[in-house]
Amino acid sequence: MTTSKSNFSKPLILVTNDDGIDAKGINELIKMIDSLGEILVVAPDSPRSGQSSAISSGYPLRLIPVEKKEDFTSFKTNGTPVDCIKLALNFLCDRRPDLLVSGINHGSNAGVSVVYSGTMGAAIEGAIVGIPSAGFSLCSHNPDANFSACSDIVTFTCRKLLEQGLPQSVCLNINIPASDKINGVKVCRQAHGYWTEEYDRRTDPYGKDYFWLTGQFINLEPDNEETDEWALAHNYISVVPTTYDQSAIKYIDTTRNLFSE
Amino acid sequence: MTTSKSNFSKPLILVTNDDGIDAKGINELIKMIDSLGEILVVAPDSPRSGQSSAISSGYPLRLIPVEKKEDFTSFKTNGTPVDCIKLALNFLCDRRPDLLVSGINHGSNAGVSVVYSGTMGAAIEGAIVGIPSAGFSLCSHNPDANFSACSDIVTFTCRKLLEQGLPQSVCLNINIPASDKINGVKVCRQAHGYWTEEYDRRTDPYGKDYFWLTGQFINLEPDNEETDEWALAHNYISVVPTTYDQSAIKYIDTTRNLFSE
Repeated sequence: MTTSKSNFSKPLILVTNDDGIDAKGINELIKMIDSLGEILVVAPDSPRSGQSSAISSGYPLRLIPVEKKEDFTSFKTNGTPVDCIKLALNFLCDRRPDLLVSGINHGSNAGVSVVYSGTMGAAIEGAIVGIPSAGFSLCSHNPDANFSACSDIVTFTCRKLLEQGLPQSVCLNINIPASDKINGVKVCRQAHGYWTEEYDRRTDPYGKDYFWLTGQFINLEPDNEETDEWALAHNYISVVPTTYDQSAIKYIDTTRNLFSE
Repeated sequence: MTTSKSNFSKPLILVTNDDGIDAKGINELIKMIDSLGEILVVAPDSPRSGQSSAISSGYPLRLIPVEKKEDFTSFKTNGTPVDCIKLALNFLCDRRPDLLVSGINHGSNAGVSVVYSGTMGAAIEGAIVGIPSAGFSLCSHNPDANFSACSDIVTFTCRKLLEQGLPQSVCLNINIPASDKINGVKVCRQAHGYWTEEYDRRTDPYGKDYFWLTGQFINLEPDNEETDEWALAHNYISVVPTTYDQSAIKYIDTTRNLFSE
């Protein structure tokens, strides 16, 4: 089933998202990078927001070719964003991708949202297998958002990653303000914070409660210029080098003390 | 719907897992820690392995009380492990939990498996909201595994966390060899590696392919004594302090260079 067109003169760019293959964001993304290489799209068949690095083991996965007019190869799956990457690497790529791009997400993945993000789950999967990878998100949940503010940073980043790669274990979490007055790019770290008031509680016609996820982000360090949330609040594009290595190295000794007594 | 029994003399311990509320692992865990505090169980109604930090926004969630003979409060949900924690904190806890415990997972969550683990997703959620949290996993996928090797480390860890807490942003990823000859406890870091040969490809009765997730872990540093995989391979219990902060701080400058040109 190796269907990626063999064109070894061009870099191979693997594209996915978590809003699903019909979302505007991924289709705008493809237009922005189509000239940079051979594009292979493998994306969920429907929205998979908040899927983090989830993988599907409880049911079998399908890979369905998508007919498109444009000159690139496209598949949809019934899996998560990470499933899309794993399936692509196992069955669809005739060579190792030179670049993995995820997005453009409809909505921010800055701060602690990176933990829950399927967009970033896919980029982190790329880092795990050593492919230069980036997730892009526009800070607007509008399904018909204007993605033009993303164009320059998307093409710049993809060119740079194709030329220079990234250190092993790292991918990029890039968030773009929904603004036509962007002040520039800030490389920063993930802001500390959490989500609160997280559910809309309702009662069904049979008197039983059900709960819709909602809520708002509480930024614990809104004035810290080192953070992605600060950058976005001040109309900068935020770039956070992001790793799958979740070891809290600086607390190894504290933890040793806990277990040595 | 605050159903946690008010007993302020005892610490409140929130328990979840990703194998589902009927798994042997969570029920063995409850027996091990029942005497340490008031237990509130909120767990998925069926297996949710590999759910990472996924949250459910595409469908409403339910909280169903579970009748048990034992003297603790128990609910099941149709959500992920992280959904369980968020629902518990929003609707079931009459006070802030003093401890969050996830597991005992049937199977290792060492190395890069922490990224995909629903068991650890729940523990990481605890760290995000500042509750001392630990995920426990036994290195056996047997549904009827013998969990007796876990008992000492589970009760020791829970006592320590209730007494001393953990630094903000950190939880513990604790993996236990399926062995009756355990050499001790090693505090370590996540081993670098990845999964390969990840699918069992089959054809359905209608001639269409489908794919079951499978595969094996490739350890990129099997001889490194600092890693959790080394500890487990040598019959030590591994303890990795684990953070939700995925910023790759040591690559901030490298990333700045990428974007400064």
